[in-house]
Amino acid sequence: MAEKQPVILVTNDDGITAPGIRALVEAVKGLGKIIVVAPDSPQSGMGHAVTIGEPLRLHKVDIFDGIDAWECSGTPVDCVKLARDIILHHKPDICVSGINHGANHSINIIYSGTMSAAMEAAIEGVPSIGFSLLDYRYDADFSIAQQVANTLTKQLLANPMPEHTLLNVNIPKRTKDDFKGMKICRQANAKWQEEFDQRTDPRGKDYYWMTGKFINMDERDDTDVVALQEGYASIVPVSFDLTDHKMMNKLNKDWEGIIVS
Amino acid sequence: MAEKQPVILVTNDDGITAPGIRALVEAVKGLGKIIVVAPDSPQSGMGHAVTIGEPLRLHKVDIFDGIDAWECSGTPVDCVKLARDIILHHKPDICVSGINHGANHSINIIYSGTMSAAMEAAIEGVPSIGFSLLDYRYDADFSIAQQVANTLTKQLLANPMPEHTLLNVNIPKRTKDDFKGMKICRQANAKWQEEFDQRTDPRGKDYYWMTGKFINMDERDDTDVVALQEGYASIVPVSFDLTDHKMMNKLNKDWEGIIVS
Repeated sequence: MAEKQPVILVTNDDGITAPGIRALVEAVKGLGKIIVVAPDSPQSGMGHAVTIGEPLRLHKVDIFDGIDAWECSGTPVDCVKLARDIILHHKPDICVSGINHGANHSINIIYSGTMSAAMEAAIEGVPSIGFSLLDYRYDADFSIAQQVANTLTKQLLANPMPEHTLLNVNIPKRTKDDFKGMKICRQANAKWQEEFDQRTDPRGKDYYWMTGKFINMDERDDTDVVALQEGYASIVPVSFDLTDHKMMNKLNKDWEGIIVS
Repeated sequence: MAEKQPVILVTNDDGITAPGIRALVEAVKGLGKIIVVAPDSPQSGMGHAVTIGEPLRLHKVDIFDGIDAWECSGTPVDCVKLARDIILHHKPDICVSGINHGANHSINIIYSGTMSAAMEAAIEGVPSIGFSLLDYRYDADFSIAQQVANTLTKQLLANPMPEHTLLNVNIPKRTKDDFKGMKICRQANAKWQEEFDQRTDPRGKDYYWMTGKFINMDERDDTDVVALQEGYASIVPVSFDLTDHKMMNKLNKDWEGIIVS
């Protein structure tokens, strides 16, 4: 009897027609039975949004050459929830999200729909990885990212890790000769400094476009930002326990008067 | 010369007309100069979404009895960014978000617009607190939550904590007599088990409403979920460094062959 193939859920936040998700499907072809469930329109910057105030639509589409695929009217997180509950009726064996057109290193994980989809899968106990390429262009070269995605998906399938494993993987914009390999990193302490572009509409009312400047405030060199600058793909293992345990102890001591301990 | 009043930014995710934000404004009145910047429509479940694909609108409104207030077309995170960059042109001294109509304990922090607004402020280096009441009703009794909000806002203003301090505060639905006080807690390991409600529209097409059942998988009793069940308000100190440091060490060892270390 043939061994049962692992089920690989592929999703993204750039939308189901983005070149990045096609590149990811190609990269993991042959490693298992693939299903694609992705947003029907771009969902960049959606963070961990879920759709609760309106109903969700799900349509089967035939755009991946024989691979089962659905487009969803909701967010990346909605896609992961629907894939499990409406399409598969069980957990996939792994979830891969991306390949995102643009970086999701450091603090960007918080804003990223690509990473939220991966996190949602991890909350469900599904090993998962989000992939992002540091190239925004629609016609970006995904070949190094595909090689990284293939290697890491194989690795996670062959070596199951503890539940709730989630990896944030970013790939530098490099040629094959300049690519240095992969590195395990910390999330850099960084932020976006907004610069709103204020304009006036034809009826005289103001509106604002959000733009911004990325600022790395981290001085150490074991971060994803530094690894990427040096030409490595960065792998940040991510947790969704947001508790600041050090601060817990501090507050229990410092706030003795106002809290019950 | 009079001492300069601290600037208190008030925001939420239920929208600027929700009773919860009025209750919060009342609760912190007298502790500083208040400005309100909140979404012009409900934004529950928006997670850490930001608006990048469309422009943002910001309108001054006069609905808080002499307090400067703006409604914004974007997400809670957008509100915090606009408050700083377009309205104040400097950081507020503290940001309070809520009072949310409904719980944001345990894993809900990931999906919550209320908590994302607080986290965005913390990323900017502003001490911040999100408040949520375990009562979804529009006419919920916010009086205990207001007392908690007043106490903690005073506490953070008087005792500045390390940068990036962010508290997730949930208040049980209790009467004054049954309320036990406040407790510092861990985020419970919990998840939502979705149950999609499948329907058919008048044109014969399927659609889905997301519903779900909350599942606490945590067996220890130092969590926010347990504290709330016992009648305490839960205070979880929150970090936005999502790196799983333990897993970093493990992967550096286990994956020696495929990574550069």
